[in-house]
Formats: sequence, structure tokens, C-alpha cells
Amino acid sequence: MAAAGPVRRTGSPGRPGYDLDSLLAVAVKVFNDKGYDGTSMEALAQRLGITKSSIYHHVSGKAELLELALARALNALFAVTTEDQVTSGRSIDRLEYLVRRSVEVLVTELPYVTLLLRVRGNTAVERRALARRREFDAFVSDLVVAAAEEGDLRPGIDPALTSRLVFGMVNSLIEWYRPRGGESVSELADAVVALTFDGMRA
Amino acid sequence: MAAAGPVRRTGSPGRPGYDLDSLLAVAVKVFNDKGYDGTSMEALAQRLGITKSSIYHHVSGKAELLELALARALNALFAVTTEDQVTSGRSIDRLEYLVRRSVEVLVTELPYVTLLLRVRGNTAVERRALARRREFDAFVSDLVVAAAEEGDLRPGIDPALTSRLVFGMVNSLIEWYRPRGGESVSELADAVVALTFDGMRA
Repeated sequence: MAAAGPVRRTGSPGRPGYDLDSLLAVAVKVFNDKGYDGTSMEALAQRLGITKSSIYHHVSGKAELLELALARALNALFAVTTEDQVTSGRSIDRLEYLVRRSVEVLVTELPYVTLLLRVRGNTAVERRALARRREFDAFVSDLVVAAAEEGDLRPGIDPALTSRLVFGMVNSLIEWYRPRGGESVSELADAVVALTFDGMRA
Repeated sequence: MAAAGPVRRTGSPGRPGYDLDSLLAVAVKVFNDKGYDGTSMEALAQRLGITKSSIYHHVSGKAELLELALARALNALFAVTTEDQVTSGRSIDRLEYLVRRSVEVLVTELPYVTLLLRVRGNTAVERRALARRREFDAFVSDLVVAAAEEGDLRPGIDPALTSRLVFGMVNSLIEWYRPRGGESVSELADAVVALTFDGMRA
């Protein structure tokens, strides 16, 4: 044989090749369009224009694709919780930074966060993702409690309810936000922070 | 024949009978659990414990059940737009009342609004519902514009974005709110209004 290194098999001649990242991007799009439960490996292979065995070259199956996609969204969100501006300072400022960065993560990782927010817990992979989401929610809720204790919240604010409502607003972006040239992500994040921290009333 | 009035057929002996309202309530639950597309009339009949022909006694088919369910949610929301407190007074107060009542409608009609918010426009019935949703959104957005013109909003507020974010928060209730004994709907509505109009910051 000629001096051939390992050759990436890409299905049939002329078909595009995929690395794991680009394969994952397409899989996530299909999961979001058709639902994870409603997507077969066969349908995935057809959409990718490659054979099923080409997918198995990268992952053990559909569940691993889901796990990788959910991990990408969760890791991006948890990475924010360890940034300097979230680990020191007054809790209200840490909370504001966390909300702002969460909007940015949601927009940057839109398809992955969309998939995460639609998870309902039908499989072990989904239940683990839900558990990590609850961990993130608890982190936010603790920050709201701390901000209240430091006297920086208006009286009568319920911390658990408030964190749910604020992230309800943030997460609702997956329903209507579509990246466009004109508007910047930071303007969007500013609007969410302004509304939830200072309100719209003059 | 004996003096029998019309007899409601309820499928087989001992099976529960349904009027249109109770049939609709079960259908909406199944649509929300399994998805409208994924629900057959056969599955619906099984869940109801009646025959398909018993369902056809009430409606022409699945699409009519969907249309009735979506109309219930939309009519409840549009009814709010004609209440006195929304048709007169300062726009900011009308808007506040509208947000408060929308939370109440969402909680009262939870399964119906949940179905409405998940509609994606695959059928003519769904597209009509989406058109009415857009009409409602435009009504809200116009109120925010008017409130800004009357000088009652903080400077720099983008009306279209703000109405999307506020109703993003309101609509997010379908993801996590479950009616319980302890908390009242009006407390929930108060929390949403306080957060979006005055913010959480002291």
C-alpha cells in the first residue's frame, strides 16, 4: 500500500466530511427541528449525507451526540459562574454580571442552549442535564438571596421567584431571538439587565 | 318507544361520558404531553376511554379540537384587551393592568395557553393562531410606545424589545408554574409587574 495515513471516511465520493464539531452542529439542528426522540440515526445520516457507520466513527450513538451537545451549553453557562466578576464583589453586581453573560452565552450557543431548555428528562442523559440545570438555578437563587441580605434589593422581593422570572425572560430568547447584523448582543444583554434590575417605569 | 330524550352515547357501558368541554380538556392534555402532530384520533379515543365515533359526535376531527383549544386561550387573552382598565387611562397603567391580567389568564387557562405557545405553524389552524398572537403582541407593543410618548418610561427603552422581554417572562410561567394551594395567582402577578416595572434593585 502507498504511504497513506488514516483516511477520514466521508460516506460516498463527493460527500462532505465532518469533524466531531461540525457533525454535532448538524445533529443539534435536527434534534431542535424534529425533537430528539423523533430523530433516528438513519435520519441523521441522511441529513448529513454520510453513512451511519461514518457517524459511529465519531460517537457511540444518538445519546452521546445529545450528551455532547448538552455539555457544551452547560459548560458555557457554568464557566460564567467562575469568572472573576461573579466570584467577588457585592452580590447585586455579581448577579447583574451573571445575567448579562448568560444572555451572551445563550445567543452565542443558541442551538445548544435551545436543546438544553427543551430537555424533559426522558433518558438518563437528559436527567443528568436537568440536574446540572437545577444546580445552575440554585447558584442564581443563592446570589439573589445574598443581594437581599446585603440590602441591595427592593423590599418584598422573593429570591427564588425572582431568579425564576429573570431566567424565564433570559431563556425566552430562544423562542424569538435570531442573530442579525444590525443589533449587538451586548445591546440585548443591556436591555434584559435594565428591565429586570431597574424596571421600565420612569 | 318509551319517553326517552336523546341519549348521549358514551362508547361502551361503564365508560365516562364527555361533554365538549371535558373532552377538550383531555385532548389538550394529550396534545401537550405527546405533541399535536404525534397524537392520533385513535390514541385520543383510547386515552378518553371512548370510541373514535364518540369523538366525531362532538367535533369533525383533531384539527377542530386544536382550533377550539387555541381559541379558548386567544379569546381569554383578547378579552383582557377590552377591559375598562386597558381601554382608558394613562398607557403605563393600562400596560401594567394588561401584564397583570395576562399572568392571571395564563395561570387560569394554563394547559390552553401552553398549547398556544407551542404552536409552530404546521397547519392552517396553527397559522391562524399565530396571526392572532402577533395581533396581541402588536397591541402590547403599541401600549409600550404610547407609554414612552407620555414620558412614563425610562429613557432608552426599546418598545418592541421590551414587550417581547416582558411577555417572554410572562410566557415562561408555562415552563415551571404549577398551581399549588399556598401561593395566590395575584401574588405571582404582583411579582411579575414589580420586577418589570420597577426592577429588583433597591
